[in-house]
Amino acid sequence: MSVVTKPKVKTDLEIAQNAKMAHIRDIAAKLGVDEDDLELYGKYKAKLPLNLIDQEKVDKNNLILVTALTPTPAGEGKTTVSIGLTEGLNKIGKKAMVVLREPSLGPVFGIKGGAAGGGYSQVVPMEDINLHFTGDFSAIEKANNLLAALIDNNIQSKTRNLGLDPRTILWKRVIDMNDRSLRHIILGIGGTANGIPREGGFNITAASEIMAILCMAKDLEDLKVKLGNIFVGFTYDRKPIYARDLNAHGAMAILLKDAIKPNLVQTLEGNPAIIHGGPFANIAQGTNTIIATKMGLSLSEYVVTEAGFGADLGAEKFLNIKCGYSGLKPRALVLVATIRALRHHGGAKPEEYNDPSLERVEKGFANLEKHIENSKKYGITPVVAINNFISDTQEEINLVKEKCAAMGVKAIVSEGWGRGGEGTQDLAKTVVEVIGSGVNGFKPLYDWNLSVKEKIDIIAKEIYGANGVEYSKKAELGLKRIANLGLEHLPICVAKTQKSFSDNERLIGRPTNFHITVREFEIAAGAGFIIPIVGVMMRMPGLPSVPASEGMDIDGYGKITGLS
Amino acid sequence: MSVVTKPKVKTDLEIAQNAKMAHIRDIAAKLGVDEDDLELYGKYKAKLPLNLIDQEKVDKNNLILVTALTPTPAGEGKTTVSIGLTEGLNKIGKKAMVVLREPSLGPVFGIKGGAAGGGYSQVVPMEDINLHFTGDFSAIEKANNLLAALIDNNIQSKTRNLGLDPRTILWKRVIDMNDRSLRHIILGIGGTANGIPREGGFNITAASEIMAILCMAKDLEDLKVKLGNIFVGFTYDRKPIYARDLNAHGAMAILLKDAIKPNLVQTLEGNPAIIHGGPFANIAQGTNTIIATKMGLSLSEYVVTEAGFGADLGAEKFLNIKCGYSGLKPRALVLVATIRALRHHGGAKPEEYNDPSLERVEKGFANLEKHIENSKKYGITPVVAINNFISDTQEEINLVKEKCAAMGVKAIVSEGWGRGGEGTQDLAKTVVEVIGSGVNGFKPLYDWNLSVKEKIDIIAKEIYGANGVEYSKKAELGLKRIANLGLEHLPICVAKTQKSFSDNERLIGRPTNFHITVREFEIAAGAGFIIPIVGVMMRMPGLPSVPASEGMDIDGYGKITGLS
Repeated sequence: MSVVTKPKVKTDLEIAQNAKMAHIRDIAAKLGVDEDDLELYGKYKAKLPLNLIDQEKVDKNNLILVTALTPTPAGEGKTTVSIGLTEGLNKIGKKAMVVLREPSLGPVFGIKGGAAGGGYSQVVPMEDINLHFTGDFSAIEKANNLLAALIDNNIQSKTRNLGLDPRTILWKRVIDMNDRSLRHIILGIGGTANGIPREGGFNITAASEIMAILCMAKDLEDLKVKLGNIFVGFTYDRKPIYARDLNAHGAMAILLKDAIKPNLVQTLEGNPAIIHGGPFANIAQGTNTIIATKMGLSLSEYVVTEAGFGADLGAEKFLNIKCGYSGLKPRALVLVATIRALRHHGGAKPEEYNDPSLERVEKGFANLEKHIENSKKYGITPVVAINNFISDTQEEINLVKEKCAAMGVKAIVSEGWGRGGEGTQDLAKTVVEVIGSGVNGFKPLYDWNLSVKEKIDIIAKEIYGANGVEYSKKAELGLKRIANLGLEHLPICVAKTQKSFSDNERLIGRPTNFHITVREFEIAAGAGFIIPIVGVMMRMPGLPSVPASEGMDIDGYGKITGLS
Repeated sequence: MSVVTKPKVKTDLEIAQNAKMAHIRDIAAKLGVDEDDLELYGKYKAKLPLNLIDQEKVDKNNLILVTALTPTPAGEGKTTVSIGLTEGLNKIGKKAMVVLREPSLGPVFGIKGGAAGGGYSQVVPMEDINLHFTGDFSAIEKANNLLAALIDNNIQSKTRNLGLDPRTILWKRVIDMNDRSLRHIILGIGGTANGIPREGGFNITAASEIMAILCMAKDLEDLKVKLGNIFVGFTYDRKPIYARDLNAHGAMAILLKDAIKPNLVQTLEGNPAIIHGGPFANIAQGTNTIIATKMGLSLSEYVVTEAGFGADLGAEKFLNIKCGYSGLKPRALVLVATIRALRHHGGAKPEEYNDPSLERVEKGFANLEKHIENSKKYGITPVVAINNFISDTQEEINLVKEKCAAMGVKAIVSEGWGRGGEGTQDLAKTVVEVIGSGVNGFKPLYDWNLSVKEKIDIIAKEIYGANGVEYSKKAELGLKRIANLGLEHLPICVAKTQKSFSDNERLIGRPTNFHITVREFEIAAGAGFIIPIVGVMMRMPGLPSVPASEGMDIDGYGKITGLS
C-alpha cells in the first residue's frame, strides 16, 4: 500500500515561476520590519541591516535545527523539510521563519539542481536565489582573490617583500564555477613582469575560508579581525604570515560590507525566509551565517535552520563550533530520514532504492538509531521527520515510527514536498510540543580547551562510533604547526565523507570496530577552527559530459527554461 | 594671472559621502518613471526595464558625445566634464541626464582612483559605483568563465569532443582584479581527472568580449545571438568553433539577464545618471551600452555621454561602430581639452605640466586642431570644453579660445570640478545653441562594405594623419582568417596607444609623415568588430608596490575611508 502524495506534475522551476510572490516589503512587514530599514534588491529580495539584531530576542525565541541521517548521494531533503516545517508552523498559527544557506552558482550549470528546496516547499524567487542572488558569493570571491593578488604582488615586490616562501603558500584563488582545469595551475609565468612562477589553483567559492569567516563573524569589526587572522604561509625563515601582515583585511572587509547583511526572501506560501552564506559542510561548518540565525531569532518566535550533510558532520559542527562562537542554543533538533535512505543503509543498491523492503528498513534503522543516540548526547531528544516519497509504504513508515517510539522519539511523516504547509502540520505541532515541554537542554560535546587530539578523539568515539583515531606522519607534523602557531584552543571541523559515520564511504548503516585516520591538518585561523582531513576532499567540481547549461535558455521576455 | 577656482579642500570620497542623496524613486520620478517599473538595489540604485526604451524619443531627443584631445596619462576629465555639463544643462532649465560607463573594481585596489567623476561633478553613491555596484561586472565574469569551463570540459570529454585544438583557443578567463600572476598560466595539470594541460590566462573583466557584446546588444534576443557568435578556436581539421557549437549562449544569456538592464543613479546635484557597461577603449569600443544610451534618450531631452581615451580612439569607435550598430546620431560633440595637456603636447615634461607657458600651449594646440578637423569629417562642428585647473592662466585660455574661433569653433571654460553645475552653464548654453542651430549632420567616416584594409586605411589617414598602413606577416595571415570566416564586413576597432595619434606614444602633438603597423588581428565575432593590434595592449594590470588597498578601511558602522 503506497502512501498517496500529490504526483509530481510540474518541475521545481515551473512551480516557482507560477508562485504569486508578495512584495518583499510586505514580507518584512510581517516581521515588524519597516520598508525604510530594507535594502531592496528588486521587488522580491532585500538585505536586512545588522542593527535589527536584538540579543534579548535571540535568547528568548526558539531555534530548531534540521539535520539528517547519513544521506544517499541525492540527499534526503533537509532544505525541503526545513521550508515545509516553516510553512507548517505558520499554518498552525506560530510566527516562524526559515534561515538557510545560499546555493552556489557554479554547480547549477553542472548536474545538480538548485538548492532552494523542492516541490511545494521552496523559497522564491528561485532563479535569482540559484543565480547571482544579491551578489554575496561574488563579493566573497573578490575578497578572496584580492588577498591572493596581494600575496603574489608582495612576492613580486622588490621594496616591500616580506620574504614569503612561495612553496608554503596555502591560499588558493576561488571562482564560483565548476572548472576542473583550474584545480591545479602554474601561475606567474611569462617573464619577470608577470610574477613569480609557482604552483597554485582555484577552489569553488563556497570552499573559500572567507565564506567560513563571513558565516562566523558577529559584525563588521569581528569580520575584520577574522580576515586579518587568515594564515597565508611562512617566510623563508619560518615566520608565519597572516593577512593582516599584508594590510589586506580593511580592503577585504570593504568588499564584504553588503555581503555581511542577511538576505530576506519568502517561501512559496509567503512566509519569511533568510538565506545567507553557504560554506562547505566538509572543510567548513556547512551552515548559514551566525548573523542570519540571530537575525531570524530577533524577528521571529520560531526559526528553522539546517546544517549540511548528515548529523555526524553538519549538526556536530553546528552544535560544537557555531553554537560555541555564537552562544546559540537550539531548543529542538529535527532528524530528517527517508525510507529510501533506510533501505540504502539496509543494503539496497541505487536501482533498488524505490523497492519497498521492511527487512532493509529494519536493518538500515541502525544508522538512524545512532544519530538519535548522538542527539541525546547534546541534551536534545530529536524529532524524526520522515520526508515522504511516493514509493514509501505504510508498513515501512509504521516500522520506523515504532522503532523511534521505543527510543522515546517521535517520528512524523513530512509531506512538504507534495503539499507544502498542509503536509507538515503534524511535524510542526510535534516540534512545538517538544520545545514547550522543556525537556531539551543543549550542552556541547567537548571542551575547546582540551588538546586537539583529545577533541578529535571525543568526536570520533562519541559521534562516529569509532574505536580510535590514527594520525599519519604528515598529520603529526600538522599538530606541531598548530601548537607553534598557538591555535590548539580552536574547535575541530572534521573533513570526512558524508556517506558513512566512518572515513570509508562503503561502510553504510552503523559501522563498528573501525578507526579513522587523520591524513593531514588544515588551519582556518581566520574562521577559527582546525580541519583534520579524514578523506579526499573535492574543492572544485568539474562539469559532466553533458553540462546542465546546454539545456538552459532564456527568451526575449526574460523567461528562463531548463534551470532545475 | 591664475583663474580662481574653488581650491580642493575635500577628497572625492568626502564630497560624495557628504552628498545628501535623493531616494532613487524620486530621481526616477523626474524622468516620468514609476517606482513600480524600477528594480531597486538599495535606496540609491535601480535597474530600468528595457521596455522603457521608446525609439521615437530616441530619434527625437539630443545626444551629446563628450570626447577629448590626446590625453596625458592622468586623463583630461571627460567624465567630470560630462557630469558637469549635465548639471549645467539642468541649471539652465533643460531636462538632461548623463549616461556613462561602469568603473572596473580591480584597479580601485591598485593605484587608480574611482571613475565616477571628480570634485563637485560626481555620480553617487560613489563607493557602490566603484565597488560591486549592481553586479554587472560579476555577471559578465561568470558568463565569460562559464564559456571557458565549457571549452575545457569539451576538450576533456570522451563522448562529445568537438576536436578543438587547444593550441588555437583564444578565449581567456577573466577576473576583475589587478593580478599579474594570472596573465599567463598553465592550466589543467595534475593528472587525467583535472583537464588537459594547456596554456591559458586571465584578462581583467572589462577586457572580456562579453563586456563588448553586452554593450553592443539591442535586447536579450540579440544578446543571445551575439554570444553564440563568439569565435572560440579551430578543430584539428581547421573547422571554426563558435560558442553556439557548445550550446553555451542560452546559459550565458541567463547569467546576463539582469546585467543587460541599465543602472539608474544620480549626480551630486540630484540629476539622473545611467551607468551601464564598461568595455576597454583600446581592444573594444570604450563606451557604455547601446541600451543605456537609448534608455537615456527615451527618458530625457538631452543625453550627455562619453567615449574612452582621445577622440581618435573613443569618438572614432563611437561614431563608426556604435552609431553603425544602433542608428544613434549625436547632435553635438564636446572636445575636452586641458591647458595641462596642451602644454604637454607643446613639449612640457610631467614636472612642468603646472607651469604656465603660452608658447607650449600654442605649439600643443596642433593636437587639438587635428581633433577639431576630425570632428568636422563626421559632419559635426565640435564645442571645445576647457576643463579648468587651478594652474591655468587667463592668457593661455584666451589663446585657446582665439585659435578655436579661427576654426569656427567655440571654446568654453568648464568649471564643473570646482563648482558643479554653477561652473558649466556657459558650456551648457553653447551646446544647446549648437544643437538648436541644426548645423550638425552626422555621417560615418567609412562604409562597412569596404575591404578590411580599405577601412583601416581610411581611419589611419583621415583620423590619425598617417601616410599609410603596414601589415606584419602575422597580420596578413589574420586577414586571410577573417576572409575565411566571412567576417570582412565588420567595422574596425583599432587597438592603439591613446597617447599619440600614431602608434608611437612618444609622438605627441600632431605627428606627420608616419605609418602605423598592424602587428596582428583579433576577431570579436560576437561583439561584431575586427581588432587590428597596433600597439602593446595591457589586458591585465598589476598592483603597484604599495597597493591602494593598504590604505583602505571600514569601521564598525560601515563607513569607508581611503577609497579615492
